[in-house]
Amino acid sequence: MSVKASKVWHPLDASSLPALLGGLREISGRLGGRPESWRIREVGDGNLNLVFLVDGPTGSVCVKQSLPYVRAAGEGWPMPLSRAFFEWSYFQAVAPWVAHFIPAMLHYEPALYCIVMEQLSPHIILRRGLVAGQRYPRAARDVAEYVALTSFFTSDLGQSLERKMALSATFSGNSALCRITSDLVFADPYRDAPRNRWTTPQLDAIAAEFRRDGALKVAASRFGHRFLSCAQSLIHGDLHTGSVMVTESDTRVIDPEFAFLGPSGFDLGAFVANLLISYFSQDGHASPAAPRAEFQAWLVAEVDVFWSHFRARYGELWRSQARGDAYPGDMFADPASSKALETERARILGELFADMVGFAAIKIIRRILGFAHNIDFEWIADADRRARCETAALLLARTMLLSPADFTTTADIVTAARHFREHSGSGRS
Amino acid sequence: MSVKASKVWHPLDASSLPALLGGLREISGRLGGRPESWRIREVGDGNLNLVFLVDGPTGSVCVKQSLPYVRAAGEGWPMPLSRAFFEWSYFQAVAPWVAHFIPAMLHYEPALYCIVMEQLSPHIILRRGLVAGQRYPRAARDVAEYVALTSFFTSDLGQSLERKMALSATFSGNSALCRITSDLVFADPYRDAPRNRWTTPQLDAIAAEFRRDGALKVAASRFGHRFLSCAQSLIHGDLHTGSVMVTESDTRVIDPEFAFLGPSGFDLGAFVANLLISYFSQDGHASPAAPRAEFQAWLVAEVDVFWSHFRARYGELWRSQARGDAYPGDMFADPASSKALETERARILGELFADMVGFAAIKIIRRILGFAHNIDFEWIADADRRARCETAALLLARTMLLSPADFTTTADIVTAARHFREHSGSGRS
Repeated sequence: MSVKASKVWHPLDASSLPALLGGLREISGRLGGRPESWRIREVGDGNLNLVFLVDGPTGSVCVKQSLPYVRAAGEGWPMPLSRAFFEWSYFQAVAPWVAHFIPAMLHYEPALYCIVMEQLSPHIILRRGLVAGQRYPRAARDVAEYVALTSFFTSDLGQSLERKMALSATFSGNSALCRITSDLVFADPYRDAPRNRWTTPQLDAIAAEFRRDGALKVAASRFGHRFLSCAQSLIHGDLHTGSVMVTESDTRVIDPEFAFLGPSGFDLGAFVANLLISYFSQDGHASPAAPRAEFQAWLVAEVDVFWSHFRARYGELWRSQARGDAYPGDMFADPASSKALETERARILGELFADMVGFAAIKIIRRILGFAHNIDFEWIADADRRARCETAALLLARTMLLSPADFTTTADIVTAARHFREHSGSGRS
Repeated sequence: MSVKASKVWHPLDASSLPALLGGLREISGRLGGRPESWRIREVGDGNLNLVFLVDGPTGSVCVKQSLPYVRAAGEGWPMPLSRAFFEWSYFQAVAPWVAHFIPAMLHYEPALYCIVMEQLSPHIILRRGLVAGQRYPRAARDVAEYVALTSFFTSDLGQSLERKMALSATFSGNSALCRITSDLVFADPYRDAPRNRWTTPQLDAIAAEFRRDGALKVAASRFGHRFLSCAQSLIHGDLHTGSVMVTESDTRVIDPEFAFLGPSGFDLGAFVANLLISYFSQDGHASPAAPRAEFQAWLVAEVDVFWSHFRARYGELWRSQARGDAYPGDMFADPASSKALETERARILGELFADMVGFAAIKIIRRILGFAHNIDFEWIADADRRARCETAALLLARTMLLSPADFTTTADIVTAARHFREHSGSGRS
């Protein structure tokens, strides 16, 4: 490796990567041996980036690089490289609280928009595990812990307004990724948009119904407006089960390039949506030889594990670590005021729950009627069977958006999910 | 003037200003004559800045310069010079819609943190006019129009998320001024803070009551949290009657150095608070020879003029100029969806009204129990008489915070204001 890789942006590959990593003492020390001996595989299966796994004789790393376009759509859909900077900046911002829940960040190469990080092994993407019917007993609780820590400590409850405004200054630059969410999640599924796709012709009628339903569109837009204007905390912005890597005993959150200051409930809702998507999709993966009923029961129970842990932890952090400018501690020191504040905590947790419900519903809908789909449903080969699962999920999501007052506990979500599954016939194989 | 004024920051004065302005072709052309002939007066009576009026043979300008400390508190309370940059940036951002409601911006001198602008004449500060019992028939309507235009076009209803996030990136730097509001408006009046002052001993008991009232403090903090985390639109941030200059036929908004992305209702509430403060203070300025009852009736009626004009204009802008990413127009084109959106507009205007009520109450309280007071009350020399006026205002504000459901129309505000005035004995001279 006599030629150093150019520091002007270019897509990395198996021939240029060794030169780049070989020049970084800590990384090459970790990998061991000579750069020529490193094994390099490109494994990116997401929508946006190049991802390389690099293995050396003594260690391994993962390299993630931005491409100047949306990988899933091709070069005709340009996308700024800067998302690698926002991913790196997000991890730097949350690492003080959740270092054990993210990959170790090893190096950022600004000109190449490329992050070198710990290679997680033997972790797999949570979504893939769930599609395979595998339980991860820690996942929901760990992600709840993760969201509690990141959303509390980057909010006005957990940090000074100066620190929060500094985060805002940085992440206000991430408009390209907010644009994707605003369009693909909150708008396209509810209008004629060329990027939309769905299981056709099975879902044609319900897709058309959704595009006509004024009340539904108002509800979706209300949450879209909240997404754009509620600067509650630094959010991951894409916290679905494809952004979580797991073993049975470890949980790591990846891929935060959508990060910005938004409503904390958006992260909560993303995770719950994906538990529910997995729940509804299981009927498409079950077979008489490998039924999934017990696994489904476990999945919906995890919705409560997730919320209950989040609620307890968030309240506890607020009681013990309130160093922010909202609800200043010295205003609520006396017992009567402290009691009034405790009531307010419950109210705010209720607001977070309502946001979780609304954003979860919207995330379910976008994965069925919008541009980007999930393997949970996509890997159900039989279109009729897939459509039955998707329809049940859509009916739940619509009810969550149109009747939010009916969803005040996780039991309400679980009961409604069961109801729509049973009545849609998606249990039939 | 052979020596050019240094471009490193220093406080300007009558001897350095002519050198600075003489070097600016457009400004010196406007003033006419030779710099030596210009008449210069320092007139700053606010809390934060130097303000010079400069008059030449053919024209005049006003020069506003940041000081590195809070003028009202002295050099022991440092304050970044950058607030001049944020004032300038705010005016640049809103000028496309409200150029006729602000002074013409002539020049910004970055190193000196100094703005050269149109000298408004014969305008006076609206608050001074109201203290003198003078009606300004256009003021409330014009300020309503101003808030409708600025808050709509800088929100997600009126502009793209890219433009809004660019504003957010700029104004996230203005944390020093947000710190002042967060502390002085939302916290100090409700806790023992050395900077607090009030009419003593007359208000000692009610001040102590406010500091003990858990429910009141929760309500104040809820709005404080909203101030910090609701990035609804670019707000002026200090839109009281001291930030409005008027003649009988013209209205101009000044002093937006507190600008940042916050809840639109904060600007609405600031103005309404100051109409109500003026209303309650009139009993302290009335005399048998110069009664103020009719003027008071006019003042409270202006609360409705203000809100009704805002509501109508904001709704009209939303219907005709929605180019933002919230509630995308193409989702609501059919008649049924359009009708659903109209219902949502009413809901959002209701939310803006509730914010206006809450923020108004908080702004009233901080002017009576906090650090910075208004001449409306301060110029009532008799402390007992002043305290009666202030008490009536405090009682209204507390009710607005504790019983928000009782305030859904401007008539509710007016009725309650009259009630507390009549029952506090502040009508007695």
